[in-house]
Amino acid sequence: MKFCPECAAPVMLKIPEGDTRERHVCTSCGTIHYHNPKMVVGSIPVWETNGEIKVLLCRRAIEPRYGYWTLPAGFMENNETTSDAARRETEEEAGAHIALHELFSILNVPHVHQVHLFYRATLLDLDFQAGTESLEVQLFSEQEIPWDEIAFPTISHTLKFFFADIVAIRHGGQFNLHAHDIMHPMRHG
Amino acid sequence: MKFCPECAAPVMLKIPEGDTRERHVCTSCGTIHYHNPKMVVGSIPVWETNGEIKVLLCRRAIEPRYGYWTLPAGFMENNETTSDAARRETEEEAGAHIALHELFSILNVPHVHQVHLFYRATLLDLDFQAGTESLEVQLFSEQEIPWDEIAFPTISHTLKFFFADIVAIRHGGQFNLHAHDIMHPMRHG
Repeated sequence: MKFCPECAAPVMLKIPEGDTRERHVCTSCGTIHYHNPKMVVGSIPVWETNGEIKVLLCRRAIEPRYGYWTLPAGFMENNETTSDAARRETEEEAGAHIALHELFSILNVPHVHQVHLFYRATLLDLDFQAGTESLEVQLFSEQEIPWDEIAFPTISHTLKFFFADIVAIRHGGQFNLHAHDIMHPMRHG
Repeated sequence: MKFCPECAAPVMLKIPEGDTRERHVCTSCGTIHYHNPKMVVGSIPVWETNGEIKVLLCRRAIEPRYGYWTLPAGFMENNETTSDAARRETEEEAGAHIALHELFSILNVPHVHQVHLFYRATLLDLDFQAGTESLEVQLFSEQEIPWDEIAFPTISHTLKFFFADIVAIRHGGQFNLHAHDIMHPMRHG
């Protein structure tokens, strides 16, 4: 941010009176412009057949991480709820019809100012197809997941938490909310 | 937003190619400026003595809702995690020393573009005091809570979920994650 979105005058970095952090403050009208983390919200769309559980992944048609696999997810928009966002992104990126369940994972990625949320979901049919931001969409069992080609650490963690809970459920457990913080920038290969 | 924060030229509202929503787009450099929901994060600081459970509330010294009671909470900052934000706000607003536990509630407030998160917490001592944004801080049992003077619906809901779980726990239950959407603007009296 270089200029004030309200009056077009230059902004400067300073700590406003009563604050403890540097903010972008307008040198003319004095407006303080705050910057806050954004939420990325998605789903874990599940299809179960003959006792085998598969999840729907999308191969990214956009940067960053073009060509890598992800759960359907994206930036939450104003005027929607987190559930709305999870449903919308699943529809947009995977053309998938789902029943949305509970919040399953919350992952902080503080170095990119993001919080990622994933909801469990059940696919209602197999009529999914790649949206404009996906090259292809495909169902994967745990053994089939291309672990080395997953787009983001928050996706790998969520998938691992999910399949661990599936094992736990077979032994009388249940789905739990999983919280995890990604504290270091990922290294691109 | 009236002017581009990158080049100071006027912005206009239009739907960018490949998008489905109106965005603020710069008429000169073409930068698309997205606006996304913000997260408000706080804690439910608990003190238990002789089997009685009390929670710490702060009376707001700032607008909106000056003079009304709230759980310690505030806007999450860049470069911190949701847990960091809950601890920081509890320290800033209530001067309270806590051990932070699991995420307890997630509440969408789409008409103000906010998502509120509250973590359960245990007070480590009784050396709390009002910060600059609080008039006073005080422990309340469920019966003592000033329900008609609570600042925001997300606070009332979180407190009701909390004391309902306390009753459930006495009957063998456990704390659960509570999700709720506040779909209508609150009416000021």
